[in-house]
Amino acid sequence: MRFVAFNKEGVSGVGVLLQDDRVLDVRSVLKDVSSIKALIERASDDDIALLASATSRVEDYRTYGLSEVVICPPIKRPIHDILCVGVNYLDHLKETKDTVKGFKEATAPVYFSKRAISILGSEDTIELRDDLDDKLDYEVELAVIIGKRGKDIPIEEVEDYIFGYSVFNDISSRSLQKRHGQWFRGKSLDTYTAMGPAILHKSALPFPVKIDVRSYVNDELRQSSNTEMMIADIPSLISELSMGMTLEPGDIVATGTPAGVGMGFSPPKYLKKGDKVVCEIPSIGKLVNYIN
Amino acid sequence: MRFVAFNKEGVSGVGVLLQDDRVLDVRSVLKDVSSIKALIERASDDDIALLASATSRVEDYRTYGLSEVVICPPIKRPIHDILCVGVNYLDHLKETKDTVKGFKEATAPVYFSKRAISILGSEDTIELRDDLDDKLDYEVELAVIIGKRGKDIPIEEVEDYIFGYSVFNDISSRSLQKRHGQWFRGKSLDTYTAMGPAILHKSALPFPVKIDVRSYVNDELRQSSNTEMMIADIPSLISELSMGMTLEPGDIVATGTPAGVGMGFSPPKYLKKGDKVVCEIPSIGKLVNYIN
Repeated sequence: MRFVAFNKEGVSGVGVLLQDDRVLDVRSVLKDVSSIKALIERASDDDIALLASATSRVEDYRTYGLSEVVICPPIKRPIHDILCVGVNYLDHLKETKDTVKGFKEATAPVYFSKRAISILGSEDTIELRDDLDDKLDYEVELAVIIGKRGKDIPIEEVEDYIFGYSVFNDISSRSLQKRHGQWFRGKSLDTYTAMGPAILHKSALPFPVKIDVRSYVNDELRQSSNTEMMIADIPSLISELSMGMTLEPGDIVATGTPAGVGMGFSPPKYLKKGDKVVCEIPSIGKLVNYIN
Repeated sequence: MRFVAFNKEGVSGVGVLLQDDRVLDVRSVLKDVSSIKALIERASDDDIALLASATSRVEDYRTYGLSEVVICPPIKRPIHDILCVGVNYLDHLKETKDTVKGFKEATAPVYFSKRAISILGSEDTIELRDDLDDKLDYEVELAVIIGKRGKDIPIEEVEDYIFGYSVFNDISSRSLQKRHGQWFRGKSLDTYTAMGPAILHKSALPFPVKIDVRSYVNDELRQSSNTEMMIADIPSLISELSMGMTLEPGDIVATGTPAGVGMGFSPPKYLKKGDKVVCEIPSIGKLVNYIN
């Protein structure tokens, strides 16, 4: 099941995307669940099973055509800053070492965070602040959405704590990342976080997840890899992040980007006004954003 | 005025600490304001003036003795991860260069963030996770509490966007900071953020703020400096952080620590079980925490 947030005539809701591009209104199955946040926090395994069975008997429930609703970012305001993993694909590590002077390779996963007071959804516009930032870059990533509160999670239990997956664009200013020593500010300008269009429930994928991730700028393929090429895999990342640090339902973990970011080209291919960036994970969808 | 959060017989409230160590219940002046978060978000300049005048006519309002209430962390759950500034005192920059092999000095302020799903108050206990972290350290800092939503704030208007100030302990694992390349994880374990006991309203201090910051471990003075020794001052930090990145009421900015952290001694003086750490800013109060 792919969950989307939608707005219909001013009222927010959460839906399941159906095969025929219709949207099943979750409220017609689970009363009072009108946001993905509420779904993540409140839905039991039985509720999820009920939703799954509803998708095969849609005539008993409320559905809408895609033209009747506006699809919104699945999570607009995160509960905490987004948990991010840096240089977690071998090919991206290599391009980073080749292009960033003095880059020091860590011996363990690199964790950092990314502030977003509001997350962009698909079709939203990334603001290029060329007064602050002359090196705007894209990074397609698989985002893991945490489903259950957990701390000190053993590697073999990680899947229990996951709700699902989404497509994430970790938009980055390379100049601000460098200028301020730590990466935080170069990752955290308004509109630098995009996620969507949907959250794929974990039940749709075998675990650990082996799934293609790709990005395109103006229809040119820039990044193309598979999550099995990660240096640290999802079970070890989530488990390690949870050591001593409680994860909460709705937390977002962006698991790193493969090679092919703008910085990695010679000369670099940074984003400019008018560009269209597409991040794609086939079974989840296409996250489309424009630069302005 | 120093604002405190309190709990009286299971009911939360916000109070003004009075000279005679009594607490004026803000609700008896401003109806419906029962948390510092609400006070920051909703109180107008006139409301603050009303509160100030109430403190000189306390017989007309509800007050409690300190023994009648439990003082709580002024902000327990932050709206976003805490915005932090690294190596922002010249003496701490020097001790960092002297002790951290390969430390690369940035040419601009170093911004990073610190996750806290729950902030400790005074008298709370910091959990030493010696299975993860053998180098637990303290850092006294002046925290700035943002009072008004703002983006691209000019330096000369920064004070308008501040609500007040608090005492902050940026508890840090030096081993995790190093292990993971970026500082985030080493700063973000549960119980690694302490703030309090009060928030001093900005009207109590001339701006820019010149105020002593000190820390003690087991009554031994470790850090002693003044905010005028900062490399980048509060107006320039808040203004720069807001460039392209919206600050919101309730955001916390920790402005960096002076020399004298445990890492800076030879041999280092890291925290161990049973230690008592006191961070003090005289006009705000003492933030007392225990290691266990």
